[in-house]
Amino acid sequence: MGELKGACIVGQSGGPTSVINASVYGVIDTALKNPNITKVFGAEHGIKGVLNDRLFDMGEEDPAELELLKYTPSSALGSCRYKIADPDVDDTDYKRILEVFKKHDVRYFFYNGGNDSMDTCNKISKYMQKVGYECRVMGVPKTIDNDLFGTDHCPGFASAAKYIATSCMEVYQDARVYDTGMVCIVEIMGRHAGWLAGAASLATAFGAGPDLIYLPEVDFDMDQFLADVDRIYKEKGNCMVAVSEGIHYADGSFVSEAKTSATDGFGHAQLGGLAATLANIVKEKTGAKVRGIELSLLQRCGAHLASETDIEESYMSGKAAVENAVNGITDKMVGFECTRENGEYVCKTKLLNLTDVANTEKKVPLEWINAAHNGIEQSFVDYALPLIQGEPKLPKESSLPRFAKLKKVLAK
Amino acid sequence: MGELKGACIVGQSGGPTSVINASVYGVIDTALKNPNITKVFGAEHGIKGVLNDRLFDMGEEDPAELELLKYTPSSALGSCRYKIADPDVDDTDYKRILEVFKKHDVRYFFYNGGNDSMDTCNKISKYMQKVGYECRVMGVPKTIDNDLFGTDHCPGFASAAKYIATSCMEVYQDARVYDTGMVCIVEIMGRHAGWLAGAASLATAFGAGPDLIYLPEVDFDMDQFLADVDRIYKEKGNCMVAVSEGIHYADGSFVSEAKTSATDGFGHAQLGGLAATLANIVKEKTGAKVRGIELSLLQRCGAHLASETDIEESYMSGKAAVENAVNGITDKMVGFECTRENGEYVCKTKLLNLTDVANTEKKVPLEWINAAHNGIEQSFVDYALPLIQGEPKLPKESSLPRFAKLKKVLAK
Repeated sequence: MGELKGACIVGQSGGPTSVINASVYGVIDTALKNPNITKVFGAEHGIKGVLNDRLFDMGEEDPAELELLKYTPSSALGSCRYKIADPDVDDTDYKRILEVFKKHDVRYFFYNGGNDSMDTCNKISKYMQKVGYECRVMGVPKTIDNDLFGTDHCPGFASAAKYIATSCMEVYQDARVYDTGMVCIVEIMGRHAGWLAGAASLATAFGAGPDLIYLPEVDFDMDQFLADVDRIYKEKGNCMVAVSEGIHYADGSFVSEAKTSATDGFGHAQLGGLAATLANIVKEKTGAKVRGIELSLLQRCGAHLASETDIEESYMSGKAAVENAVNGITDKMVGFECTRENGEYVCKTKLLNLTDVANTEKKVPLEWINAAHNGIEQSFVDYALPLIQGEPKLPKESSLPRFAKLKKVLAK
Repeated sequence: MGELKGACIVGQSGGPTSVINASVYGVIDTALKNPNITKVFGAEHGIKGVLNDRLFDMGEEDPAELELLKYTPSSALGSCRYKIADPDVDDTDYKRILEVFKKHDVRYFFYNGGNDSMDTCNKISKYMQKVGYECRVMGVPKTIDNDLFGTDHCPGFASAAKYIATSCMEVYQDARVYDTGMVCIVEIMGRHAGWLAGAASLATAFGAGPDLIYLPEVDFDMDQFLADVDRIYKEKGNCMVAVSEGIHYADGSFVSEAKTSATDGFGHAQLGGLAATLANIVKEKTGAKVRGIELSLLQRCGAHLASETDIEESYMSGKAAVENAVNGITDKMVGFECTRENGEYVCKTKLLNLTDVANTEKKVPLEWINAAHNGIEQSFVDYALPLIQGEPKLPKESSLPRFAKLKKVLAK
């Protein structure tokens, strides 16, 4: 494909991360400098901002504030969880998107998100091809869940992993301070894939982490869990456990949603009350002092503990999306290809077909989970450790984080 | 008093903090260098270590590892929650303590803790005076709760406050990312005093913190709370709330322990489930999407976010305890006297009578709480902001914290 001049839109979608703004900054910074891109728009709340024609003119922002996006958690442009229809069933949204694209002469569309967002991106890409409107569409990956297909890892995962590992190391110190013993259960995000709970093994690898780790890749057995906890508690006088929020029984039902005598009638699941539920059960069965800790939103917005590697790679993925699109590429998601030979970690971008990415989930390989299904193998640590390296140069004001302040000037 | 030669014991007691080890390092480092102190012992699990004659010889430790105590959270020597008897009622423990003191020729006793620990320290001090055993006894303050009498603030408070303020700023970004709105309720430690929940106001002062803050210094009114949340949520589309775990109704009963239709039969209070309880109530009443977040142990062990000011002051308080004791002072707790004139913060140590400190709690002044009892005045921010300044030079290994590893060699 040849040279294509026009405006670009970048949007963010799905659950935010500590570094999703670093990706978007990679797009914006690269696009603003590119002579083929005439205008750089940020869509308010992802695709909804396109549908509502609420586009921010990123050229109006102070460059220094834009650069702070590298260290600002959450989605600065706003996010959405809007499920776009199948265009063969209902093409209303697509017609509207085309209308807005035409109105602003949009020739580049960058969508920053996880599985569902890549599905949206893919559908828009295919629709534009079908109606013959030339627009280069690129997916920019993000998800703390690390479950996108075809890429070594996803921007956002490493920073959440570092937050989880560091927090586990700190809690480990605290949760064994008394001579009276304690069981501590840490609940970590991850509904279908256990990458984040697995990251707690980094703490264990450095001598101060969970004794037991349970992932959703394998079935959870409550009796076995209670026996595991009881054994460690009796052995050491303390027991630290990490659980993925998505652990489920063999019949597929989530442990967080299961009714037990202790939780009857307390529809707790929607609040992510797995740690509290398990803590109550362990307390009832063992009589031990138990504390449940849910890392909740903290793990996905803890930018002060971000991985600088993650920040740089996030920027790199946004930059690669723009550069490839300007060079004629479309209908792809940027992914990472990495090598970890002889302790040297190298990460390069690669391109994946949006169609392939849109509907596939990548889980933790079963061989990285121990035979007893209550711990993680060294191979996981070898995989994840290079990703969390480096401290971000997060600017502070009075020793508190100084996040980006955008003007968000709406395009006419 | 004249020169006194002999061994010293330092012990830690009560809930740990991010910087309680910095205080103990101040004691150990100063004592090891002092010619009048013949041996430096660390008591395992506070006064219990004395009673059990389980004393670590701190002179056996690698000095570089000892220095890492400045950045290592929780109580490295182990803590306890042992309530020592009134010596007039039962002097068994005191006789045993005297026996262990005599055995190791202990002439200096430093006890590092909060209110209850100062009570223990005071009782031991008075007993030794009564029986005529010369031993200089000094309290070294610590408590995230910041509720010790007679001191400007307590070591440990500022680091927890900084963790809370930073986390609130990050969660603030995350909890308003969708166009669909959300109420977010953050539960913060503090059973009787609201200093920590008040620290959430630092986030608000920097433009990204709770809209509403509730402290235990005033009575909680559920109807008023629901009206407050509803008003803000309707106004802004989002609402962020910080609550102290100790908020209580006018009759004194804790909100965390109150039974509501949503929590009936779920004895949740012992797990600190206030955020979940309030989230359920707000959800029921408003229909809004609500998330409850409990900062739990994270806020008191988050050493990676410690205040360097707090670390240095903690060390200074331990050092002052030793220096004063060697100079003949006994029966005192080290406190801080601070000035905050023209933006310049100066902190000096002072000495308080153990008797005065042992049984008094310092609460947030009512004039620092707003008239509506749902927010904090600027005077609180002016008080707390200087305390959280400075970033710790926390050593890392593979980008994860490198905490102190002590050998803990037991004294013969």
